[in-house]
Amino acid sequence: MHTLLLPSDLLLSEGEQTLPDAQMHHLVTVLRAKLGDKVDLTDGCGHKRVAEISQLAKRSAAITFISDVEQVPPPAVEITLFQCIAKPARMDWLVEKAQELGVKRLVPIVSEFVQIKPKDSSVERWVRIAEAAITQCNSGYLMQIDAPHTWKEALLLFSEQPTLLTDLRETVRTCSSAINGMDSSVRKVGIIVGPEGDLSPAELEQAQAVGTIPVTLGTNILRVETAALYAISAVEEAFAQRK
Amino acid sequence: MHTLLLPSDLLLSEGEQTLPDAQMHHLVTVLRAKLGDKVDLTDGCGHKRVAEISQLAKRSAAITFISDVEQVPPPAVEITLFQCIAKPARMDWLVEKAQELGVKRLVPIVSEFVQIKPKDSSVERWVRIAEAAITQCNSGYLMQIDAPHTWKEALLLFSEQPTLLTDLRETVRTCSSAINGMDSSVRKVGIIVGPEGDLSPAELEQAQAVGTIPVTLGTNILRVETAALYAISAVEEAFAQRK
Repeated sequence: MHTLLLPSDLLLSEGEQTLPDAQMHHLVTVLRAKLGDKVDLTDGCGHKRVAEISQLAKRSAAITFISDVEQVPPPAVEITLFQCIAKPARMDWLVEKAQELGVKRLVPIVSEFVQIKPKDSSVERWVRIAEAAITQCNSGYLMQIDAPHTWKEALLLFSEQPTLLTDLRETVRTCSSAINGMDSSVRKVGIIVGPEGDLSPAELEQAQAVGTIPVTLGTNILRVETAALYAISAVEEAFAQRK
Repeated sequence: MHTLLLPSDLLLSEGEQTLPDAQMHHLVTVLRAKLGDKVDLTDGCGHKRVAEISQLAKRSAAITFISDVEQVPPPAVEITLFQCIAKPARMDWLVEKAQELGVKRLVPIVSEFVQIKPKDSSVERWVRIAEAAITQCNSGYLMQIDAPHTWKEALLLFSEQPTLLTDLRETVRTCSSAINGMDSSVRKVGIIVGPEGDLSPAELEQAQAVGTIPVTLGTNILRVETAALYAISAVEEAFAQRK
């Protein structure tokens, strides 16, 4: 079945609805949908619905809802990934995977040893990747992607929730044991992942000074995107265990 | 520092050693090493050692060992990944990540809905990717990569160790709870990951009939390579917790 990301107001409306150009184009050109095809709809804000293509011309398409609005249960843990910006191919891949795994928010960070200067178009590209991934993984929640933060700006966000610091070599605490040590009311967790060149000693010190929790990701040296994925998986698995 | 994968007999020998052509080429052309540079050596079988480049000409290079042989402790769990063959770009990426995360053995499987016909060159490419990844992640163990197995052949291997079946939608058992339910003497775990088109109902039934353990990877639909990475991470994290 086709899946389409639709603005909330449209998904929550009633009656036959004309599709905006972008969605119409995606449906016709990318998904090659036909008149009468069923379409899974999500607004990326926790709503899903099923519709049928009720009109289809060269440059316009309309849908008719054939189900009620379904409220998707939120994930067991809201993860904010504080990701020092990696090289483009790895960062793109990481954005896709973070969306698939249901990360709530991605905060790209320009730390001292980040080698890439992010452009405005970088964020736009990441958003497009996340949008493509949400339709693929049939999730109800679109990952929020912030504009790039400086390290100083990011530091202020680390203490908004318990935040794991994955870039410190000396610790033996696992992600799971860090999660298990948290109060059972905790539902939000941050994860900090350094860039290819690691966080600087000063940055590591500053992160620890604001109360982040150093964790180990095992004995191997992982690439940036592998480290992020391992930590996300470990945190989600620990919360799945809690239920 | 440069890292080089070297045959065991060479790494375990004494005195000045001339490098085989492949390693010489890699050192000179890819790593652009210079006379006197230090090189981290691994044989992929659990041995590491440090050497210095003691001779360097256009078409030959020699090293002299400057450390004893170090025996790398084996990972807490030996994972065999039973991976139905995914599309090339995703499979390549998965091989890199599996090596980074220290998977012991990769068994590529041609199941019913696998869309790719593996060639001999596929396995050679995967081995090259794993070899490149081991030098990057500084691990001591090279992942063993089997020639592609038919589903029937693979079925015989599932019961050689407790094996998790990740492709079944109906279960609520997590990877961690499956691991925690195993005898504490267990050190080997298999993970089965289906292809883009999933395992067939008959294959799912056959896998369960030989005693594999269905597990959930969460509520989102994950791409093949994401599913593999999530399961590997969850299993390793559960074993790290056990220690």
